[in-house]
Amino acid sequence: MNIPKSSFPRIIIIGGGFAGISLARKLSKQEVQVVLLDKNNYHTFQPLLYQVSTGGLEPDSIAYPIRKILKDFPNFHFRMAHVHEINTVKNEVITDIGMLKFDYLVVASGSETNYFGNTEIENHSMAMKSIPESLNLRSLILENFEDALLTSDLNERNALMNFVIVGAGPTGVELAGALAEIKKGILPKDYPDLDTRMVQINLIQSSDRILKEMSENASKKAEDFLEHLGVNIWKNVRVSGYDGKIATTNSDLTFETATLIWAAGVKGATIKGLDSAEFVTKGERILVNEYNQVMGFNHIFAIGDLACMECEEFPRGLPMMAQPAIQQGQQLGDNLLRLIEQKTMIPFTYKDKGAMATVGRNKAVVDLKHFKFQGIFAWYVWMFVHLFFLIGFRNRLVVFINWVYNYIRFDREARLIIRPFKKKLKA
Amino acid sequence: MNIPKSSFPRIIIIGGGFAGISLARKLSKQEVQVVLLDKNNYHTFQPLLYQVSTGGLEPDSIAYPIRKILKDFPNFHFRMAHVHEINTVKNEVITDIGMLKFDYLVVASGSETNYFGNTEIENHSMAMKSIPESLNLRSLILENFEDALLTSDLNERNALMNFVIVGAGPTGVELAGALAEIKKGILPKDYPDLDTRMVQINLIQSSDRILKEMSENASKKAEDFLEHLGVNIWKNVRVSGYDGKIATTNSDLTFETATLIWAAGVKGATIKGLDSAEFVTKGERILVNEYNQVMGFNHIFAIGDLACMECEEFPRGLPMMAQPAIQQGQQLGDNLLRLIEQKTMIPFTYKDKGAMATVGRNKAVVDLKHFKFQGIFAWYVWMFVHLFFLIGFRNRLVVFINWVYNYIRFDREARLIIRPFKKKLKA
Repeated sequence: MNIPKSSFPRIIIIGGGFAGISLARKLSKQEVQVVLLDKNNYHTFQPLLYQVSTGGLEPDSIAYPIRKILKDFPNFHFRMAHVHEINTVKNEVITDIGMLKFDYLVVASGSETNYFGNTEIENHSMAMKSIPESLNLRSLILENFEDALLTSDLNERNALMNFVIVGAGPTGVELAGALAEIKKGILPKDYPDLDTRMVQINLIQSSDRILKEMSENASKKAEDFLEHLGVNIWKNVRVSGYDGKIATTNSDLTFETATLIWAAGVKGATIKGLDSAEFVTKGERILVNEYNQVMGFNHIFAIGDLACMECEEFPRGLPMMAQPAIQQGQQLGDNLLRLIEQKTMIPFTYKDKGAMATVGRNKAVVDLKHFKFQGIFAWYVWMFVHLFFLIGFRNRLVVFINWVYNYIRFDREARLIIRPFKKKLKA
Repeated sequence: MNIPKSSFPRIIIIGGGFAGISLARKLSKQEVQVVLLDKNNYHTFQPLLYQVSTGGLEPDSIAYPIRKILKDFPNFHFRMAHVHEINTVKNEVITDIGMLKFDYLVVASGSETNYFGNTEIENHSMAMKSIPESLNLRSLILENFEDALLTSDLNERNALMNFVIVGAGPTGVELAGALAEIKKGILPKDYPDLDTRMVQINLIQSSDRILKEMSENASKKAEDFLEHLGVNIWKNVRVSGYDGKIATTNSDLTFETATLIWAAGVKGATIKGLDSAEFVTKGERILVNEYNQVMGFNHIFAIGDLACMECEEFPRGLPMMAQPAIQQGQQLGDNLLRLIEQKTMIPFTYKDKGAMATVGRNKAVVDLKHFKFQGIFAWYVWMFVHLFFLIGFRNRLVVFINWVYNYIRFDREARLIIRPFKKKLKA
């Protein structure tokens, strides 16, 4: 790979998500050469992907050009690349655009959808971990309503208007809420020829409560909110199969649906060379010590969703969320400089800033460490925090305007089928 | 096709562009049943497509859900459909979602890129007549720079950074200007590893002036503006071939380029059943009389780009622009009601509101009937008019904010490769 030689040590960062970007920012203006690799030329603000899927926002509002983030940093190099393999003996990263040697390597490749080995579900369901996936889901939802208009087969029409969301974490809950608001606010006007009361939104959770990573209060209240919006919540139900038409479960319960959204789990996006049993632990995450070092290496690190850092409060590793990723990126920035200067590194301690999820207009749940609240104030907090963490003034302004507009008008104007999804399937 | 029966006469409109939408609006709240067919579920504001291609705007800013435009109209039905054929004997429209009978038919299917039979150019060049095409072009432009970083072959790198735009009408001129501004304002910061001075923008025109539909003043001034921005203008040059690597011309001149954008012509998007020589005239447009009636029919009409209405001032038919389309749609709305009530129709007269094109910041050319001007005031007029004609308050606001931001920051933040174009080519 075509990277200029430098007298500074070279740090390769794989992945421009929350972890990789916060590390890169920490390393700006330091005496290191940084090479950031990502398969996309943009950073994705994943918490708002569900709003892209439901026509509330366009990609540019939640994506940000990586080159723009790095543009004022000297000794920084970005390359758009798929990393195929890491050679931990030769200290090489092998990608689709060539090989590159490193002095230090930070793997921040994040997480991917976990189908738990069920290829039938993988082949027929929709995921929502990336912008293209979210746009595909947007197209499919809208195409379903267009198709529902065309059929006189009542079963087929109902299946087209039946949305099954598997997994009631924040993604599933937020998507279910958004679909319920579309059903209420947009569909009756857009589809006067359809009986949109038949639209069903089913949210399926394998355990006995939704938002199970949050407090019981939050779970309870989110459930109330969703039921009030008309979402059917199914707890203690495990989806076992989906052939594109019928979703089966661990009981007699089945769902006839044209759209199954799989939000039931994520796993570490491991890379060949660091994917063997000696490195990988629960959830296919890479086990790291308190310095984010991969076991057995002094100069190879993992941060963010991919890294499994066990601690007293989180014996199964820190949660796979933005906050641990951002904090680890920042801490590792300091520690890398210390390591290079042969100083002692500082162990990472996680500052738990809580968790939150939104259900719909005026409806959110927030768990802070010492303060848990739900409802309209929580919704304002949710919006403020998400606007605050969005990169870029223009993004914040455009998102804010869209939210205000959508709030006042009960509307979502990006309901555009730009790239039909079903057509692509047939092609 | 599944359209409710009605006691009112049924008018089918094919196409939701400027012509079709302005007609539909005129027919709202009248005693007619209107069925609007379009292959997309949105209306496209085509004059700003080049800003989508160059990362200045996202699709939702220049696209508007057709269902939303029609939502308060009774007796309106929209169906997303590809029209395969018109049966003028049985009064049927045959589509990919079934057949539909009409009492009155209005064909407003617009225009498509004209390659003048050159399939080699068609297969290897980029067009910019639709949102997906514009997004493809956006991806390709950005992918080219990413690829230019990777090659050490100087010829290949230059070809990747050489943009050839064929056709210097408003589309070609506006795109050339936008690329020149990207070269100046964004590339040096985004690609510090590349010598972006090597980026070339070539604008090729077969006749002896650019913007040849506008006044000589406008042509002259636009040329000055473009040259000042560093665009190479080639007049009296006709591109004869392009194999994906080298563009050949009618002289010895050739261009080694990875990106050839074909903006050299459009033709009517005719439909089987109305595409025979008795209907079709210059530019594959359908010849209509002063009531927009297709020759030989009382109840079949064509409006907008597709319709060739000859008049004294425009012996080759009205220009293929938004204004004639909008005016014809409005006039035909009145005339259809007159026809149904067996009143005499009123002949169409075109109110020429002039033409305009923008070259870059503070640089535009405007031709009004009695007043032609260029420069910064023209640029404000251009912006005001385009904002005014955009449908939707939110669209106007978001476009306005993006423009203000881009103006102040010399920036375009939607430089995102959401769906890589080259990867798709290889797949």
